[in-house]
Amino acid sequence: MRSTRPGRARSESARLAIMHAAVRLLPELGFSGLTIERIASEAGVGKQTIYRWWPSKSAILAECVLEGLTPGFSPVVANSGDLEADLTEWLAVLQTALDEPGFRSLMRGMVVAAVEDDALRSALYENLALPSEPLLVERLEEARTSGQLRGSASPRVLAESLVGAVLYRLLATAADQSVRVDDLVELVAQPRR
Amino acid sequence: MRSTRPGRARSESARLAIMHAAVRLLPELGFSGLTIERIASEAGVGKQTIYRWWPSKSAILAECVLEGLTPGFSPVVANSGDLEADLTEWLAVLQTALDEPGFRSLMRGMVVAAVEDDALRSALYENLALPSEPLLVERLEEARTSGQLRGSASPRVLAESLVGAVLYRLLATAADQSVRVDDLVELVAQPRR
Repeated sequence: MRSTRPGRARSESARLAIMHAAVRLLPELGFSGLTIERIASEAGVGKQTIYRWWPSKSAILAECVLEGLTPGFSPVVANSGDLEADLTEWLAVLQTALDEPGFRSLMRGMVVAAVEDDALRSALYENLALPSEPLLVERLEEARTSGQLRGSASPRVLAESLVGAVLYRLLATAADQSVRVDDLVELVAQPRR
Repeated sequence: MRSTRPGRARSESARLAIMHAAVRLLPELGFSGLTIERIASEAGVGKQTIYRWWPSKSAILAECVLEGLTPGFSPVVANSGDLEADLTEWLAVLQTALDEPGFRSLMRGMVVAAVEDDALRSALYENLALPSEPLLVERLEEARTSGQLRGSASPRVLAESLVGAVLYRLLATAADQSVRVDDLVELVAQPRR
């Protein structure tokens, strides 16, 4: 999804320079520290060039993800037959990615982009959630059938609670960012006897 | 928390007019539809007046919440001795609030403010989460003691999963915004025999 406005040609090299600059600055500055000024300076363009094409820094970063310039990570849960092991691995992979400052800041930016722009929300949901979320729900449904799921809450609600707990850690708290993988797995999976 | 910069006096009446205008426009426009232009026009001030004092619409809305001009709702869970009833009521109250377009948009704006500004994140966390979250954790701890809690996951992780599931619905999905109260309660509470 490009935010190009009709009737305005964008210089492709300037566009790519801006997008690469935003991604390059993100790990060092964090999402809150990133500014259009710094991106412009890093890309060697004027601020007005950026504002002509994007309304905000989150929109630039969303375009980077949607065009695959920087990976919007959507880890897929495995199916080894052992729910506890599969969820533990899935959450650990997610947590390792979120421990990386650049990726963490990128995901914070995606949340902002999704809240600020309804069209971006749909595009980002398709890009970041749809490749993996239905597989997580399916995995939990299979675990229900094989008696590995706790209680009787719907697999969809269980999936949203797991993703939500990670999201809450990403957004609300400044320190102690890690999710508690064992506890989250325990919430969902029936303990092995 | 005021974002007043040193050496710049703000006209108190203009400041309040801007904040009231932002809150008034929010239910109709939504967070993504709200613009500094519309707020300026509604408040009868110039755009530059707003930008002199606030960097973004989310920062204006955060100031409204932090000064109590519009309530930042932090529902407290009851303790009737019946965890299932208490959580059901708590989630229903939260959901009813989030079904109201103005409040829903306000909470989306608070997420953006928290991601964009580290100081606002701390202030908003204190204002919106601290009045109620420790009480929820305490309530779950008591339920553990009285055998009403499922499994052995820590009360803190359970609380974050409940809040996270609500947050995920608030942020990620466009349609079907309601949380599934019964399913979320079932996730945490031991069913009554």
